[in-house]
Amino acid sequence: MKLIFLGTGGSWPSKTRNVPSIAIKYESEVILFDCGEGTQRQFMHSTLSFMQISRIFISHFHGDHFLGLPGLIQSMYLNERSDPLEIYGPKGAEHIISNLLKLGYFTPSYDIIIQDVEDGQTLKFDKYSVSACSVNHNVPTLAYALEEFERPGLFNKPRALELGIPEGPLFGRLQKGESIDLDGKEITPDMVMGPPRRGRKFVYSGDTRPSKSLIKLASDCDVLVHDSTFDAELEQKANDYGHSSTKQAAEIAAKAGAKQLFLVHISPRYEDPELLESQAQTVFPNTKTASDLMEVEIKLMK
Amino acid sequence: MKLIFLGTGGSWPSKTRNVPSIAIKYESEVILFDCGEGTQRQFMHSTLSFMQISRIFISHFHGDHFLGLPGLIQSMYLNERSDPLEIYGPKGAEHIISNLLKLGYFTPSYDIIIQDVEDGQTLKFDKYSVSACSVNHNVPTLAYALEEFERPGLFNKPRALELGIPEGPLFGRLQKGESIDLDGKEITPDMVMGPPRRGRKFVYSGDTRPSKSLIKLASDCDVLVHDSTFDAELEQKANDYGHSSTKQAAEIAAKAGAKQLFLVHISPRYEDPELLESQAQTVFPNTKTASDLMEVEIKLMK
Repeated sequence: MKLIFLGTGGSWPSKTRNVPSIAIKYESEVILFDCGEGTQRQFMHSTLSFMQISRIFISHFHGDHFLGLPGLIQSMYLNERSDPLEIYGPKGAEHIISNLLKLGYFTPSYDIIIQDVEDGQTLKFDKYSVSACSVNHNVPTLAYALEEFERPGLFNKPRALELGIPEGPLFGRLQKGESIDLDGKEITPDMVMGPPRRGRKFVYSGDTRPSKSLIKLASDCDVLVHDSTFDAELEQKANDYGHSSTKQAAEIAAKAGAKQLFLVHISPRYEDPELLESQAQTVFPNTKTASDLMEVEIKLMK
Repeated sequence: MKLIFLGTGGSWPSKTRNVPSIAIKYESEVILFDCGEGTQRQFMHSTLSFMQISRIFISHFHGDHFLGLPGLIQSMYLNERSDPLEIYGPKGAEHIISNLLKLGYFTPSYDIIIQDVEDGQTLKFDKYSVSACSVNHNVPTLAYALEEFERPGLFNKPRALELGIPEGPLFGRLQKGESIDLDGKEITPDMVMGPPRRGRKFVYSGDTRPSKSLIKLASDCDVLVHDSTFDAELEQKANDYGHSSTKQAAEIAAKAGAKQLFLVHISPRYEDPELLESQAQTVFPNTKTASDLMEVEIKLMK
């Protein structure tokens, strides 16, 4: 599970930061959170292909978070996509996005399934779920938590060899949870497999003032990506505009018991990302200011 | 009068070419032709500011030519624009663009005047006119000619000094077309001014197959910017998709008596711009393949 920052700026782009978009690469698919203008071109500068996108989650309908959708959808069509595309967003998503797709001369060749998501709703997919909660911005906005389902424990190869199991297909059967017969003796999976591992958890705040509901959604997550539009000195201004300061983002991460925090939605006024990072680190040491095209492996953190 | 290429690609962006947008810097204003996704960010990499834009001309409503409008308009608002913005386009412009501005949560703080333009129409502004003609694409598409009004002739300073006119305010009065009295002798402007100079003429084809109407619109222009999606070997494919080959663009330039040709709407398949350029030059020697952020001074060419 890999996190790729495609756009870490806020409101409007700068030379170095595009407007918001965050990708999670999970096995062969890409799950996108927000899709600001120019996201399709950010993909071209990244290690991903936009043709791998399975589903897109929009936090809210301010232009910097969704205006990359029509161009992306059109380019998928021009590149002969046939797989359906799912798009989720807060109340109004179905109405806004279907209207967006009707503008100009364009008819997609593949199915686009658009769904409004409610506060507290959990969507279950094959190997993970995505839960949403309302946060505190100026318009209806959702934060999202992507949680991988529990995974089998690690296979203890030395232990298996010790038990006399020959390397080969029997290993695979045990890894799939089957018991096997070895010269009349039953070997059960728990004899060679570690305890099940909890899934990894990624949380994206969208645009928000410090929000109690988000503390709950982000509880014990491995990675929290949080709005950090202004530095601590401009906290009041951040809140007036529906955003968080860098310190407030760190406080949320600390209260949620997050393992790692990345700051995004950085105002174009900041050229030095270290200022924001160091302010946050006084509250939550494991903080980084995200930058465009940064890639982070999401690991199970203790 | 300066021409700045903001996006020279076609259909979808590549790493090196953004989707179409062309700016003309004329005195203190910027006139924009087409506005593909990401145009506002291209401005940031150029010598221009998007706050200088006075009017925008959209050639047609395929996504790659207009999807940069809502983000640009929103960023102008966030940067506190108060001047009105004019947007022109072919039939349907008013309907499509006003719907585009209604999506999501956004209300501009300045006036946006949107106007449908007809085939053959000429719009007159302070110092220049913009004429439109229908061209031959798959959806209603306009090419545009920007023509500067006739300018006064050049002031002949050596001649003025020879006539005994002292350097100073009298020079200015003559330049403005006034006659002056010099020790009882009348000096008329024609005695010190060259003949009036014709205005400069810039033409943009939009997306089009070779089009007879465009030959007339581009007659004797100083600069023609023409669709050149594919090379000469893929001419049939270019025409099937409503575009021109590089050689066909050159033929139009030659027939129109254009002084200079720039090739745009280059398919992402071409990494070497020289191939297209050299094919066109066999027909029209003064051809260049445009590249993103290229700047060209538009001079009165003989």
